[in-house]
Amino acid sequence: MGVNGDRLWRRLQTLGSIGALSEEEGGGIFRPAYGSAHAEAVALVAGWMREAGLDVGIDDAGNLMGRLEGTNPALPAIALGSHLDTVPNGGAFDGALGVLAALEAVTSMAERGDRLEHPLIVLGFADEEGNNFGIGVLSAQLWIGEISKARRATILDAHGTSLDEYLERFTVPGVPRVERPDLCAYLEAHVEQGPVLDRDDRSAAAVTSIVGISRATLTFIGEANHSGTTPMEQRRDAAWGAAELVLAVRELAGLSNGEAVATVGVVDIEPNATNVIPGSARLRVELRAPDAAWLEWARGEVEGRAIRIAEHFGLHVEPVTWHVAPPVAMDAMLVDAVRGALVDVGLEDVSMPSWAGHDAKVLARRMPVGMVFVPSIGGVSHAPGELTAAADCTVAAEVLRAAAIRASQALSGVPKEGVHVS
Amino acid sequence: MGVNGDRLWRRLQTLGSIGALSEEEGGGIFRPAYGSAHAEAVALVAGWMREAGLDVGIDDAGNLMGRLEGTNPALPAIALGSHLDTVPNGGAFDGALGVLAALEAVTSMAERGDRLEHPLIVLGFADEEGNNFGIGVLSAQLWIGEISKARRATILDAHGTSLDEYLERFTVPGVPRVERPDLCAYLEAHVEQGPVLDRDDRSAAAVTSIVGISRATLTFIGEANHSGTTPMEQRRDAAWGAAELVLAVRELAGLSNGEAVATVGVVDIEPNATNVIPGSARLRVELRAPDAAWLEWARGEVEGRAIRIAEHFGLHVEPVTWHVAPPVAMDAMLVDAVRGALVDVGLEDVSMPSWAGHDAKVLARRMPVGMVFVPSIGGVSHAPGELTAAADCTVAAEVLRAAAIRASQALSGVPKEGVHVS
Repeated sequence: MGVNGDRLWRRLQTLGSIGALSEEEGGGIFRPAYGSAHAEAVALVAGWMREAGLDVGIDDAGNLMGRLEGTNPALPAIALGSHLDTVPNGGAFDGALGVLAALEAVTSMAERGDRLEHPLIVLGFADEEGNNFGIGVLSAQLWIGEISKARRATILDAHGTSLDEYLERFTVPGVPRVERPDLCAYLEAHVEQGPVLDRDDRSAAAVTSIVGISRATLTFIGEANHSGTTPMEQRRDAAWGAAELVLAVRELAGLSNGEAVATVGVVDIEPNATNVIPGSARLRVELRAPDAAWLEWARGEVEGRAIRIAEHFGLHVEPVTWHVAPPVAMDAMLVDAVRGALVDVGLEDVSMPSWAGHDAKVLARRMPVGMVFVPSIGGVSHAPGELTAAADCTVAAEVLRAAAIRASQALSGVPKEGVHVS
Repeated sequence: MGVNGDRLWRRLQTLGSIGALSEEEGGGIFRPAYGSAHAEAVALVAGWMREAGLDVGIDDAGNLMGRLEGTNPALPAIALGSHLDTVPNGGAFDGALGVLAALEAVTSMAERGDRLEHPLIVLGFADEEGNNFGIGVLSAQLWIGEISKARRATILDAHGTSLDEYLERFTVPGVPRVERPDLCAYLEAHVEQGPVLDRDDRSAAAVTSIVGISRATLTFIGEANHSGTTPMEQRRDAAWGAAELVLAVRELAGLSNGEAVATVGVVDIEPNATNVIPGSARLRVELRAPDAAWLEWARGEVEGRAIRIAEHFGLHVEPVTWHVAPPVAMDAMLVDAVRGALVDVGLEDVSMPSWAGHDAKVLARRMPVGMVFVPSIGGVSHAPGELTAAADCTVAAEVLRAAAIRASQALSGVPKEGVHVS
């Protein structure tokens, strides 16, 4: 007996009705962490967890847990999950599918009386999207204890209300506050949020890594001047530099054969007037790749090309500071577990990087993590039209279950110590 | 005996002190039409005109005139002039030099008792810079009567005050309101406002034409999408189109061998966010050339290239509407008169187009016009640092005088009818 795909699909619809917006509000769902829709979602999912016989609780960061005991009480838990919040006008699959597929995987095991050696935790993170405080994957950072009390006090929303006040206020009737358990692994199913699996007609892929991101602001300084009276050969037009760099950044990613993407998403020209030659052009450059060495090389290329472009047009480039989030590799054993799980459920062994960040990226700093992607139809995400086929949602639950079984077996061979943080 | 260069230079300084701004205000001069500084300037220049024995008056558009009679009372007048207003934080030469060089040319003739067959009018236009109503060369348009009473009533400043109210209020003690005289020619000296004469170490050049200007807004429409999860080959990045077009526009002007300039002064990217692929890019394209055929060809090239660029990147281009101001040729006889005048005063016979608009561009719609340019040091204009060497200011007056003499002689051979408009 496999997982119950119909139940999973119905639950996705039910959860997706909480925080649903009207047409006038732009449609889709808005379920920010720690709000009333979030509390309602926690209560709903907690009820389903109890139905399956799981021990339910939330931690002091509002993260929901449902625990199925394992056969060895000495072992730390394997967590399966994702997040319960959404972006404004978001969809019913980003985050929600990861939590409900995990619940379905664990529920199906509980129903059959299957027990792994390790306890299993279904985990619903509270704040992944950063709606309240502008800080993404916040509740995963709280889970691993990397946000100090001192820093917590400085985290305020747009109205000056602190994170601590949010957390104190956030209670859900019937769901007790509990300690965070020791974990030895984290598995997350997520919609791809890109078009690759849909385009390639795949139902799922093992995630090998979450790409690194390097971002910089790069400003060309030229000379603003009269657009009529200044001869072409005396111009120092900052827009020329911007144009060449936009194309150079595109070319760099093209040279990677699909192993990197690169974007100039921001272009600000000054003074931005029809009859004045642009005196400065400020660009935001973003590079993403699973390979840290490529990112490092590309950073140098962007800077080097910017300098050569500036020299060519008589411009200056302001010194560039990069903000770098290195790539995060999934744990090799868990990648193998997910790849094996794909084969277990009758799919091809396919793997790919994640081009967006996830809760798993944070948890990877303290424990082995693994991820499975299922398709986003048309690559649409963070939008009301976000959709994953019901059959692929079922696959997410099946793969999580098979991967958890494989992970527990693999982990039984390693020292039985979990990661405890609080 | 030539013109009095010292007197001209002193008068430029004196006129330049009216409307002078403090360092805190950004320096330079601000003398908008019909304000108190303009009235003070008119009173000052009118005083100098009377000193030279000229008949002084202003028309109903606030344009200052000083008339020196000719030997043939039946002939229409030759006007020499420019404008008395400045841009905010402008300089002491743009406009002012053209009026004071004309006054110096005519004064030097009056002092020597020289009379031409034609009357001479020193003309100080009121509103060339468009500070009040956002309409450039407004008072030259009023001079030739091309703004109807009905349209005048609709011309309002930012506070809702009408042009008619401005004109009714604008009176200068001691300067009577007079009818506009019949003109048969208009000669204007002006600072180049570009770097060409200064770079080539020339003191003056005859202007052959005022360039035409074609402007368009051109928008590339792509698809805004996630900067991480969207593979390069599935992107429809509007910034790529913008970049290619900026470079194509530059290349077009480069192909003209100095016979055209082209600028993309405005680039607006939407949504202009670091982690979103640009979904649209709006550009303002400006082409300037003395040759109407080149402008027409270049418009087609810009559109054609934009369409090919869009096709290449999977973008659309919104239909483009061009705003076209065709080139205005100076009158052939007056160009010859100015070129001859350059030789008369010991300079080389040099000519060039004007890459910016001037009062002469408007008057050319009703009468023969000619212009002489003198250098702007470093090409600086519309800025406090605007400067023309004293010797070159003297040249402006000398060339105007010699050109007026040549024009009067040449015009004596043509039917003695002026252009009367009111």
